[in-house]
Amino acid sequence: MPTLLQLDSSADLTNSRTRALTAATAEAWRERGSDYRVVVRDLHVDPLPHLRTTAQHWPPRLRGGATVPDDLEELQRSILEELITADALVIGAPMYNYSMPSTLKVWVDLIHVPGVTAPFDEQTQPLAGRPVVIATARGGAYDPGTRTEGWDHVVPPLRLVLGEGLGMTVHVVATSRTLHERLPDLGSEQAEKEFQTALAQATRLGATL
Amino acid sequence: MPTLLQLDSSADLTNSRTRALTAATAEAWRERGSDYRVVVRDLHVDPLPHLRTTAQHWPPRLRGGATVPDDLEELQRSILEELITADALVIGAPMYNYSMPSTLKVWVDLIHVPGVTAPFDEQTQPLAGRPVVIATARGGAYDPGTRTEGWDHVVPPLRLVLGEGLGMTVHVVATSRTLHERLPDLGSEQAEKEFQTALAQATRLGATL
Repeated sequence: MPTLLQLDSSADLTNSRTRALTAATAEAWRERGSDYRVVVRDLHVDPLPHLRTTAQHWPPRLRGGATVPDDLEELQRSILEELITADALVIGAPMYNYSMPSTLKVWVDLIHVPGVTAPFDEQTQPLAGRPVVIATARGGAYDPGTRTEGWDHVVPPLRLVLGEGLGMTVHVVATSRTLHERLPDLGSEQAEKEFQTALAQATRLGATL
Repeated sequence: MPTLLQLDSSADLTNSRTRALTAATAEAWRERGSDYRVVVRDLHVDPLPHLRTTAQHWPPRLRGGATVPDDLEELQRSILEELITADALVIGAPMYNYSMPSTLKVWVDLIHVPGVTAPFDEQTQPLAGRPVVIATARGGAYDPGTRTEGWDHVVPPLRLVLGEGLGMTVHVVATSRTLHERLPDLGSEQAEKEFQTALAQATRLGATL
């Protein structure tokens, strides 16, 4: 069964744009046929524990004698299996204070394992070529050519881990100006237009990935 | 009493470079006199809980009716008070998978509060001009002029929050190539040289901030 893994990390359970975007991708995926399956992991509602030891960055053979407690080892194994058995991935990744939510960061630290999901001593890259949609939302405006153009530090590190490290094919769906109701100068019309464009992109990707 | 707030976030309790750097700053601070005090908060050993609601991003008057549970409100109040009463700050901020540890990210999300620590509806910036040392360590090499030059997404978002948002004076102490034992091509000699330089900088900052 073609499986989409849907990850959400927004701390907003009612008005989140990233949750709307990941839901649009998932809905379009399901509509492709009764065998199209979506596995949902809500990193906010069911948060993963922070890393306990840097040994979790490495597979057992590269830990130099350090150990990982059994429960954390089992957790990481299940997170990795969930990822590796997915045919496609959509990640809700809102920008909080210029970087990703802590809940999403834990997931990233668990799945980027040199020698397992990314090349290190072995050229292993089990997810190479598989598609991932990064669905991001930012409160302000980060338009090309403006002073704030480079202030997004959510998408770039995800692109490095998932694209460079894991070899996945990265698609980015972004909406900005989500604080337009608090900050009218951001422009409500443009904010809504960006969001509708992003929703359409998210749907199209779910239908075609 | 002149107070330095020392934050650590490395998941490595034995060989951490960032812990060595923050300790160097703290030691130099203490040596300035018996009234020079250091408050230590270990974000790894005593991790803060992930954000439960986006209302935590805002002070009560800007929450639009949303609420924060009392225990989280009290926690955030104490974290903010600890920061605002410090005369200087040193933050151990290792790079894990191109961004900061989740444990440090929670702290960032708790202290960047528009209208309280950063300008929003009020031009409030209680930490303006106070010094902060960001002590970072990266496994690989991110030298100017190379392909990986812009791959650090730890210091830039911290600089945006603490410098742009809170108005603090940001000093960066960085050491790289910490994986040189696993990846000899990184160069053990250069790694050690960078680390010694960073240690000297961290000490000097603690003695002069």
